[in-house]
Amino acid sequence: MSSPAAQAVPRPVHEAAEGTLAIGVDIGGTKIAAGVVDESGHIVARTRRPTPADDPSKTQESIADAVRELTSEYTVVGVGLGAAGFVDEKRSTVMFAPNLAWRDEHLRESLEDRLGMPVIVENDANAAAWAEARFGAARGETHVVILTIGTGIGGGVVLDGKLFRGRYGLAAEIGHFTIVPDGRRCGCGLHGCWEQYGSGRALVLEAQEQATVAPSMAQELLRLAGGRPAGITGHIVTEAARSGDVTALNCFDELGRWLGRGMAALAAILDPGMFVIAGGVCEAGEILRAPTEAVFRKNLTGRGHRPTAKVRIAELGNEAGLVGAADLSHLR
Amino acid sequence: MSSPAAQAVPRPVHEAAEGTLAIGVDIGGTKIAAGVVDESGHIVARTRRPTPADDPSKTQESIADAVRELTSEYTVVGVGLGAAGFVDEKRSTVMFAPNLAWRDEHLRESLEDRLGMPVIVENDANAAAWAEARFGAARGETHVVILTIGTGIGGGVVLDGKLFRGRYGLAAEIGHFTIVPDGRRCGCGLHGCWEQYGSGRALVLEAQEQATVAPSMAQELLRLAGGRPAGITGHIVTEAARSGDVTALNCFDELGRWLGRGMAALAAILDPGMFVIAGGVCEAGEILRAPTEAVFRKNLTGRGHRPTAKVRIAELGNEAGLVGAADLSHLR
Amino acid sequence: MSSPAAQAVPRPVHEAAEGTLAIGVDIGGTKIAAGVVDESGHIVARTRRPTPADDPSKTQESIADAVRELTSEYTVVGVGLGAAGFVDEKRSTVMFAPNLAWRDEHLRESLEDRLGMPVIVENDANAAAWAEARFGAARGETHVVILTIGTGIGGGVVLDGKLFRGRYGLAAEIGHFTIVPDGRRCGCGLHGCWEQYGSGRALVLEAQEQATVAPSMAQELLRLAGGRPAGITGHIVTEAARSGDVTALNCFDELGRWLGRGMAALAAILDPGMFVIAGGVCEAGEILRAPTEAVFRKNLTGRGHRPTAKVRIAELGNEAGLVGAADLSHLR
Amino acid sequence: MSSPAAQAVPRPVHEAAEGTLAIGVDIGGTKIAAGVVDESGHIVARTRRPTPADDPSKTQESIADAVRELTSEYTVVGVGLGAAGFVDEKRSTVMFAPNLAWRDEHLRESLEDRLGMPVIVENDANAAAWAEARFGAARGETHVVILTIGTGIGGGVVLDGKLFRGRYGLAAEIGHFTIVPDGRRCGCGLHGCWEQYGSGRALVLEAQEQATVAPSMAQELLRLAGGRPAGITGHIVTEAARSGDVTALNCFDELGRWLGRGMAALAAILDPGMFVIAGGVCEAGEILRAPTEAVFRKNLTGRGHRPTAKVRIAELGNEAGLVGAADLSHLR
Repeated sequence: MSSPAAQAVPRPVHEAAEGTLAIGVDIGGTKIAAGVVDESGHIVARTRRPTPADDPSKTQESIADAVRELTSEYTVVGVGLGAAGFVDEKRSTVMFAPNLAWRDEHLRESLEDRLGMPVIVENDANAAAWAEARFGAARGETHVVILTIGTGIGGGVVLDGKLFRGRYGLAAEIGHFTIVPDGRRCGCGLHGCWEQYGSGRALVLEAQEQATVAPSMAQELLRLAGGRPAGITGHIVTEAARSGDVTALNCFDELGRWLGRGMAALAAILDPGMFVIAGGVCEAGEILRAPTEAVFRKNLTGRGHRPTAKVRIAELGNEAGLVGAADLSHLR
Repeated sequence: MSSPAAQAVPRPVHEAAEGTLAIGVDIGGTKIAAGVVDESGHIVARTRRPTPADDPSKTQESIADAVRELTSEYTVVGVGLGAAGFVDEKRSTVMFAPNLAWRDEHLRESLEDRLGMPVIVENDANAAAWAEARFGAARGETHVVILTIGTGIGGGVVLDGKLFRGRYGLAAEIGHFTIVPDGRRCGCGLHGCWEQYGSGRALVLEAQEQATVAPSMAQELLRLAGGRPAGITGHIVTEAARSGDVTALNCFDELGRWLGRGMAALAAILDPGMFVIAGGVCEAGEILRAPTEAVFRKNLTGRGHRPTAKVRIAELGNEAGLVGAADLSHLR
Repeated sequence: MSSPAAQAVPRPVHEAAEGTLAIGVDIGGTKIAAGVVDESGHIVARTRRPTPADDPSKTQESIADAVRELTSEYTVVGVGLGAAGFVDEKRSTVMFAPNLAWRDEHLRESLEDRLGMPVIVENDANAAAWAEARFGAARGETHVVILTIGTGIGGGVVLDGKLFRGRYGLAAEIGHFTIVPDGRRCGCGLHGCWEQYGSGRALVLEAQEQATVAPSMAQELLRLAGGRPAGITGHIVTEAARSGDVTALNCFDELGRWLGRGMAALAAILDPGMFVIAGGVCEAGEILRAPTEAVFRKNLTGRGHRPTAKVRIAELGNEAGLVGAADLSHLR
Repeated sequence: MSSPAAQAVPRPVHEAAEGTLAIGVDIGGTKIAAGVVDESGHIVARTRRPTPADDPSKTQESIADAVRELTSEYTVVGVGLGAAGFVDEKRSTVMFAPNLAWRDEHLRESLEDRLGMPVIVENDANAAAWAEARFGAARGETHVVILTIGTGIGGGVVLDGKLFRGRYGLAAEIGHFTIVPDGRRCGCGLHGCWEQYGSGRALVLEAQEQATVAPSMAQELLRLAGGRPAGITGHIVTEAARSGDVTALNCFDELGRWLGRGMAALAAILDPGMFVIAGGVCEAGEILRAPTEAVFRKNLTGRGHRPTAKVRIAELGNEAGLVGAADLSHLR
């Protein structure tokens, strides 16, 4: 028995796939998305399940079920899982996952037992970053920082052509370095974390505040939001900015100002050849990229005496995490 | 003909040396120190020359001269040079050296021609960090950040057991990430760089200010400095702190506060297993280490859900740069 | 007909009162408290009404009703009203009241019509500050800043013996000057306002965060709060601090650090002879006052060359606003 | 005997003067400027002396000598002295003057003895502010903050039509409230003082840094400065900005950003009806005023619910201090 989604990708497609296949699984707070991925990063089959988020055991069973559905049709070399949370340096154990009930969950061992094939676990932002470095905007680059900008800032770092994981698997928690001492409270318990300034949520809050305090300056934003500041979304800010609305453009300049500052800090430490901006805000494209790069360059130590990293918009979309997890299982 | 310094290390020591030998050269603004180093990081012979800092060609000649003196007595596999400045990713060219007259100086090629043996060039803080990771406080650790705290903050990063150099050889310029937006002016042209807060110079300025503004609170510091705030040095602050002087201890707490904050930022990005504090401030030992570690732990994202990096004082002294440069030439 | 509260203060007390009488009314978001006040600041009779907060007209009627109850027993020279919000420079119109439905409400004119006696309106923090300057901790001082520290920071400033109101009646909005650029979001639409750092709410949030992130360090706080971080109140932090709990004491040190910094800024501008700390946090007494004063002194420009303002805890309690409003009507 | 300067203003001018006359003296670090001022703020005679800055007694004698020269020709009601430093609340004693050798100098008493006429002493920025409020851009306004922006930020505050001096005569040290916690070091011993961001010196440093780090962006500035970043002055930045140079305009935007932020803080506390920008930067006029006002309005608490102070450029020039000191002696 196979799901309609898997049926929709018939055998012939499989035969066009390059090299061996692996399965990637993106474990979100509400749904589990799984897919069969070839060595070029193409998804040749997909399926999904709802996430039973409050029951660790049932979550594992749903993952296994989705994988079995795909393996009934495709021969794969392994499975890569991506999840929000802290994953240990062996890519085996989820130490802490804020949105799932996992605490020191031995996910790899447990799923290998269930599935009878190799499994690796990776942080979801790392997995997405890896896909972008392998198949997206940063292909060919050896040193890359990928910023996935959604509600928060997730990050992945590729150094010398490999995904960088740190001593304990916790590297690249770049949304949580302090950019403003004693700044805005962060859900992580600290203050002034970068993601409180450079995230999509920060963009939306900025736009909502402008619309609340100075509605006459935010008429286009309010029109698109049905008149209520609380109705302003990231998509609305992008749309307004594209039509030339000054307040919306200012919101992106402000977001770019914080992104550029944080990237300059990262460049002093990591000296990458490229930054890639991924996540929902990418739809703004050059409206975000240009001010970000300008501020980045202005705040880069040693400017004028050094090469400067490129700043690009991501090329892969929402499925980057799934693709990257699958590809990492190839490399195991 | 050999210099007295080299003569002071007679042949028998050489025979006790472990493995092959290499020469390390530390090129400072005022003097060039060179030494023969074995595979255990021991210096078996030394010599030095003054630095003709304003003449790039003469500086090269002095380096070559010091090396020739040592090679007249010892057989070595190569030469490693350490210099303050930006060194390219191939360890060949000094792109920019603030204290020397070098701009895009092809040092490696030029010295290999003069000396007829392999040469590598490395940033001096990187070289010192490498020595500390190989032979000092961090031996056995795979992921280490070494902070060399002098007038500024120099840094070196070891990842997966290798010195991390970034895409263009400019990684680990950690003294120049912004820790206070719009903060103190830095010689690098930016504002709020870490080294304006966490360096030995910041420590001394803090003590001098206290002694100027509230001399009654700084009597011990002033006594040791001959009564003048401007006479207070890092060594004096350390001495006063050791004798229990409250103002001096407060200065180290303040230094530790900034070091701990910056280290927490680095840990979010790099996730090392250990931080090593090196440089002149090390003489304060636990007086500096303890408050630094406390603030680091308090500001670490995810604390309570993750392993925490150790914080150690360096074990090697001023010659770490020379030793590290020599050792890196072994690995070429 | 009179209320039980008014009946509880029989005629004889009235005769012991000093000088003429006036009525003060404190218009809160949930209740209207009114009292008859003599020239020494003693309350000789009290009454109260619930606040019909969403109906401006009914709120006025309730105020008038409370006043009439008191005037049926006492002869007064006028009425002073205190309300949270912006009151114009003539003490007549409430331009904006966040918790009531008033926008450009001509309160003075309207109530004088209803009551047939002189009425003045004042911002509630100003009224409370005036009482403290006249009858409380700052009596005899000519230049005083009173900080009323509750959920936010309210302030009142007395200059040359008079309540300072500014050009438009909006002076002393001291909770809303920026103390951390790009800092924590404030309900006023700005970022980094002082009240996001120096208020009772900031104290409680700090304690709750400590208890969440490092529960082992906050056992006494958690015990008093029934085990839940969210159960920690300002009163609990005070109680724990009094019993010597280190985490609670740290919370007050942090609060004092921000209060002291803000007070140093105010002293550079206003050069008062005294600061008075009022509001709920006063119950902590010296536990709060001492660290606040230490930080204030350390951050005062010109220290060592100038007299330094005293720092005191308020002497009057919750009824200061009512007393101050009444007294201001005397001075009309 | 009279000086050539006094001779240059013959009797007839005196007869055109309005009302009584007073003498104002501006005591600078290098020269003492004195003048006879009428009740309309017009200077009807002038003289000057060099300042013997390191000898308090000789400085007094020079002041007395300049005054005597003027009184030999004009009948005056008193003398007003303006000096940089802390002047006590009685306008009698200079507690501390950074550029002169005065410490607790009883200037008023001593000069009244020498001269046999009434003398008052005032801080020079206060005196200049008073002139601007009486005769300049703020005439007719009751609540004004005047910022004198030179090397630092000096300030004067007029409240209810009177010069505000605070409890100890030290009010309006507005250049020294902290605008960036842990920010740039200030000569006053604190960090992050407003004048390190909003002064003419900050403007020049910003321009010099731009010209050093990115000379290709600062060609016009460098051309006017003879090719050297160190040659860039405030006047040059103004000139370049007027000719449309983008880097120079950015420097004024940055200065305006800090001025506007600081003014928003002052408005929350003082609620003035007007801010006046005085000092050397005034020559930039609208180039500075417009961005300052925009940022001020954006950062003003309660905006949208309150009247907003006007922002003006000063009308009086360098002699405002002399005129204000004279006028204050009228009011004694």
